Amino acid sequence: MSVTVLGLGQMGTALADAFLAAGHPTTVWNRSAGKADGPVARGAALAGGAAEAVAASPLVVVCLSTYDVVREVLADSAGTLRGRTLVNLTSGSPEQARETADWAAGHGIDYVDGAIMSTPPGIGNSAIMLLYSGSPAAFAAHEGTLRSLGDAVHLGDDAGTASLYDTALLGMMWATLGGWLQGVALTGADGIAATAFTPVAVRWLTAVSGFMSTYAPQIDAGAYPGDDATLDVHLASVEHLVHASAARGLDVELPGLFKAFMEQGIAAGYGGDSYARLIDVVRNGGRA
Amino acid sequence: MSVTVLGLGQMGTALADAFLAAGHPTTVWNRSAGKADGPVARGAALAGGAAEAVAASPLVVVCLSTYDVVREVLADSAGTLRGRTLVNLTSGSPEQARETADWAAGHGIDYVDGAIMSTPPGIGNSAIMLLYSGSPAAFAAHEGTLRSLGDAVHLGDDAGTASLYDTALLGMMWATLGGWLQGVALTGADGIAATAFTPVAVRWLTAVSGFMSTYAPQIDAGAYPGDDATLDVHLASVEHLVHASAARGLDVELPGLFKAFMEQGIAAGYGGDSYARLIDVVRNGGRA
Ligand SMILES: NC(=O)c1ccc[n+]([C@@H]2O[C@H](COP(=O)([O-])OP(=O)(O)OC[C@H]3O[C@@H](n4cnc5c(N)ncnc54)[C@H](OP(=O)(O)O)[C@@H]3O)[C@@H](O)[C@H]2O)c1
Ligand SMILES: NC(=O)c1ccc[n+]([C@@H]2O[C@H](COP(=O)([O-])OP(=O)(O)OC[C@H]3O[C@@H](n4cnc5c(N)ncnc54)[C@H](OP(=O)(O)O)[C@@H]3O)[C@@H](O)[C@H]2O)c1
Repeated sequence: MSVTVLGLGQMGTALADAFLAAGHPTTVWNRSAGKADGPVARGAALAGGAAEAVAASPLVVVCLSTYDVVREVLADSAGTLRGRTLVNLTSGSPEQARETADWAAGHGIDYVDGAIMSTPPGIGNSAIMLLYSGSPAAFAAHEGTLRSLGDAVHLGDDAGTASLYDTALLGMMWATLGGWLQGVALTGADGIAATAFTPVAVRWLTAVSGFMSTYAPQIDAGAYPGDDATLDVHLASVEHLVHASAARGLDVELPGLFKAFMEQGIAAGYGGDSYARLIDVVRNGGRA
Repeated sequence: MSVTVLGLGQMGTALADAFLAAGHPTTVWNRSAGKADGPVARGAALAGGAAEAVAASPLVVVCLSTYDVVREVLADSAGTLRGRTLVNLTSGSPEQARETADWAAGHGIDYVDGAIMSTPPGIGNSAIMLLYSGSPAAFAAHEGTLRSLGDAVHLGDDAGTASLYDTALLGMMWATLGGWLQGVALTGADGIAATAFTPVAVRWLTAVSGFMSTYAPQIDAGAYPGDDATLDVHLASVEHLVHASAARGLDVELPGLFKAFMEQGIAAGYGGDSYARLIDVVRNGGRA
């Protein structure tokens, strides 16, 4: 199956290379032509313009800096895209993805939006995830080709869903890295190397994943039995974290925020419930 | 190898049961005698008092509500404990663990402190971690028996280290669960079930663990090359999270805190560095 890649920045180049490595005839285009040299040396065909590149393949993958740039680059290619599939791997908001899906529908273009949950060196590894949403039929038709980039997870027909997951997952990443940095600083203050603490932290995240899997059905059911550990129990141990951080001169805002969340939940009468009850605090703008 | 368990609360009962299940002759004691009924029915010997229980085995495992209770319960058994190994799995601070180690050393007792990274139902499963620190010789002598409880990780000879890791790992848990709750609320606002979002979130945590493993040596080396994603790039996408959360009426304190950390790092001139550079902000009480 032949494929076109528009945009050869750090990420677009990795995408083109992965298609080439998987044996797909690949046509590329980039505003600054010099960036095509690598992919062309590895077997890609270079198109003279975006419309010419679009015309070369039934599947067009676009990865540019922003959605505004995508619309600018594709402005003259709407007619050529009719009947083809456009997969947009540019990062943006759910709202931008939905607007682009509407534009595509208005021109008879099959549209799939996507989010790449990796940096460029991970592309081509089936352990990394690319999230897709939008036309299920177009996704199904090209899933095999898209799997050259990594695992392909389709999240439903709303084109905005992949970007929404992307935003939510990046939030989880910052949260987890923030907790990890706090742990590294805490243990580091007592002379423990980050490379000693981190393997234990990585293992512990597997257990934390288990708690998430236990709590997810509680949230869907709206019932939060505290039979593993209650908010009251959590509050007792968060004091240790706040105290140990303060005693070592470290930031206490992040520990303090966990404590404030627990206190909100307990003040609302949920001290005997599981940690998942704090979804009420998050949903209610920080108040239970 | 015979073992004594002092304290048959929710956790102590699980510990005694795991030793019994692994075939170790087990002597138990608890202040309220009724809680011994279960373990005794499953084969444990019931001692008439703490000192009698201590005298029954070369290895004494204690799991009571607090360190103050441990000292109270063991007050009359110091002489009997001489030459035996005391493993204290009660939760507390590194300072409390070190004080107890000093007390033990003063009485010729081999002391190992520990932290249980599980709830009671996980005890006996080799996938869960129990962290230990203190006398390496005493740990080595009893490691085989202790492995009946779960995986046994020895962290060095400072008795306070297990509690320090415990505090740091619980902090990571609250951080990760906080980010997950934000993601559940964000996707939930657009109609996605927690049980749909969570399997993707669990998979993503594996990638985040990879980032931690990449960043740990950067922190030990004090060098933070931004060749995967820079703080400038993170700041651009955290705006999406803040905006998407605010637009759905959700809490914005946690996303706002990530943003403030990134801004601190960038203001200090680290915009081209990796995320791990934010360790400076954490170490410096929230300022770069
Ligand atoms: N890098 C990552 O780790 C990563 C991870 C996940 C998602 N993403 C997303 O992937 C997308 C691309 O990222 P990247 O890392 O490849 O960025 P990049 O290296 O900065 O590349 C940006 C691309 O956009 C093009 N471009 C910018 N303005 C243009 C314009 N006005 N007209 C035509 N082309 C224009 C550039 O063309 P020129 O070469 O001519 O400037 C280049 O092809 C972004 O949305 C990013 O958020 C990246
Ligand atoms: N449960 C968990 O998920 C978990 C996880 C990790 C660590 N831990 C730690 O394990 C320890 C025990 O927790 P748990 O869940 O077993 O708590 P628990 O069910 O409340 O049991 C508390 C134990 O302490 C005893 N105790 C309290 N005050 C006493 C006193 N003045 N004199 C003598 N005995 C006294 C109780 O005896 P009585 O029966 O006579 O009241 C009981 O054996 C705590 O440090 C906890 O933080 C628990």
